[in-house]
Amino acid sequence: MEDQAQLEQASPSVQKRIQDSFDRQGLMGHLGARLAHIGPGRVHIVLPARPEVTQQHGYVHAGATSAIADSAGGYAALTLFDEDSDVVTVEYKINLIAPATGDHLQAVGTVLKSGRTLTVCQFEVYGVHGDGVRKLVANGQQTLIRMNRPTE
Amino acid sequence: MEDQAQLEQASPSVQKRIQDSFDRQGLMGHLGARLAHIGPGRVHIVLPARPEVTQQHGYVHAGATSAIADSAGGYAALTLFDEDSDVVTVEYKINLIAPATGDHLQAVGTVLKSGRTLTVCQFEVYGVHGDGVRKLVANGQQTLIRMNRPTE
Amino acid sequence: MEDQAQLEQASPSVQKRIQDSFDRQGLMGHLGARLAHIGPGRVHIVLPARPEVTQQHGYVHAGATSAIADSAGGYAALTLFDEDSDVVTVEYKINLIAPATGDHLQAVGTVLKSGRTLTVCQFEVYGVHGDGVRKLVANGQQTLIRMNRPTE
Amino acid sequence: MEDQAQLEQASPSVQKRIQDSFDRQGLMGHLGARLAHIGPGRVHIVLPARPEVTQQHGYVHAGATSAIADSAGGYAALTLFDEDSDVVTVEYKINLIAPATGDHLQAVGTVLKSGRTLTVCQFEVYGVHGDGVRKLVANGQQTLIRMNRPTE
Repeated sequence: MEDQAQLEQASPSVQKRIQDSFDRQGLMGHLGARLAHIGPGRVHIVLPARPEVTQQHGYVHAGATSAIADSAGGYAALTLFDEDSDVVTVEYKINLIAPATGDHLQAVGTVLKSGRTLTVCQFEVYGVHGDGVRKLVANGQQTLIRMNRPTE
Repeated sequence: MEDQAQLEQASPSVQKRIQDSFDRQGLMGHLGARLAHIGPGRVHIVLPARPEVTQQHGYVHAGATSAIADSAGGYAALTLFDEDSDVVTVEYKINLIAPATGDHLQAVGTVLKSGRTLTVCQFEVYGVHGDGVRKLVANGQQTLIRMNRPTE
Repeated sequence: MEDQAQLEQASPSVQKRIQDSFDRQGLMGHLGARLAHIGPGRVHIVLPARPEVTQQHGYVHAGATSAIADSAGGYAALTLFDEDSDVVTVEYKINLIAPATGDHLQAVGTVLKSGRTLTVCQFEVYGVHGDGVRKLVANGQQTLIRMNRPTE
Repeated sequence: MEDQAQLEQASPSVQKRIQDSFDRQGLMGHLGARLAHIGPGRVHIVLPARPEVTQQHGYVHAGATSAIADSAGGYAALTLFDEDSDVVTVEYKINLIAPATGDHLQAVGTVLKSGRTLTVCQFEVYGVHGDGVRKLVANGQQTLIRMNRPTE
């Protein structure tokens, strides 16, 4: 994540809100994924390659790739909402462009259009290798809907 | 899977080929998913709802829903290939139609068009509740490509 | 449209509402498309194959195929709304499964889930030949949003 | 297309090949669309807003927007092929992000990954207004397949 230093950070309260929500996603912890960057309209999630996330040829499974891509897009959308709003994925489309190899995957979710009701995000997933090589392995587009957060 | 009795089964050799490939998918085992039906051009995968597969509200995460949907479609395609061919997902699109609740999810992948190079599948994911209620939670469409299986 | 006799028809007022809206779509008239069936949650649109709608090989262009598919899905959604609501396409995904040949194309849009804000539709497009042969040429899935109709 | 001067142009033979194919697309002529830029892996298509391309509210129809987006992506892919290859759209997904208003639409198709068999493109469509304002109205992602051009 050598480019992270130059990336704009979201406010501490937004970062806390995103991290708290992420920590409640049982799947992210179970896969071993973690938040690597929280900026305004942009979130990075990292997933180490492990046998627990593979498909039949030993690459990272499209489902694991999609899971971090979907979460990266969803949290990118959430960074632009006020604290009374929550976000739900309506749909997404993903192209698996190359075998998902590398030491870890990095999913980058970016808000393309943040509307009152709907948000459209794009995401890319990179395979990051030990030697620093970073290769696009998946790419997609996502529609999300803003929900009122239930009072707890 | 009360309807499974009436479903056409794939041949034993195809069933074995699919099960062997599924067993090599580390992600499916890690999520707790299992093959529930292998028919010609149609595969069912079941995923018990557990804290390890949830999103922030306790429903099954779109990533886990997508993972079993993608595998169900992929294996549905593979049932129609000869044993020298393998299958890779090119892309898919999924709509998350309702919160993924229930005791378990059932993903149903079905081949819509099996071509020489490309296969198009549809998939549905249902939330299945203890009282037998079965509700559509996701729906999608997938493109796959046939690959020559590497000689081992 | 030999199966049309058995298809359930929408009420006359819904049929009129859909037909009036369709008639305001300059593109549909310019392409030569017409409404062939208006049922509750299901709409058919027919497009005669003409040089004006072709791609470079003389088949119907994916853009024309998509145009009638998008309109069929959108009007299928609209049949289930009250007269104060209008519909806008949020996004769709389409697979072009076979060359779009035939005397005309028939697009069939069907509502999969009609929600308060969002509707999800599926659509198929068939190439219909003079001898009655009907072949699937495209298939897709669409998300739409309900809008309040502006007071006129 | 004030930015076109800085854009890299494809070779004259590639430009001719793309233009010839475009001229055979009956739909593009019928809609009034024209090629505005042909660069390596990038093609622009312009569509003047006219009553013939509208939906029921007078905006450009999603089908017309999609048609030029699909062609822009397809021709972007084709710029990178040798003259014995042709291209066919496998599938695409498009988000209609804002009402398609303006004097004309500009579709920009860009190759994301050009593989031996499959190519993945992205496209954006802008509404361009008389005062020079340029607004994103649609965005999408497309999969294409390389075909051998039939000997004529």
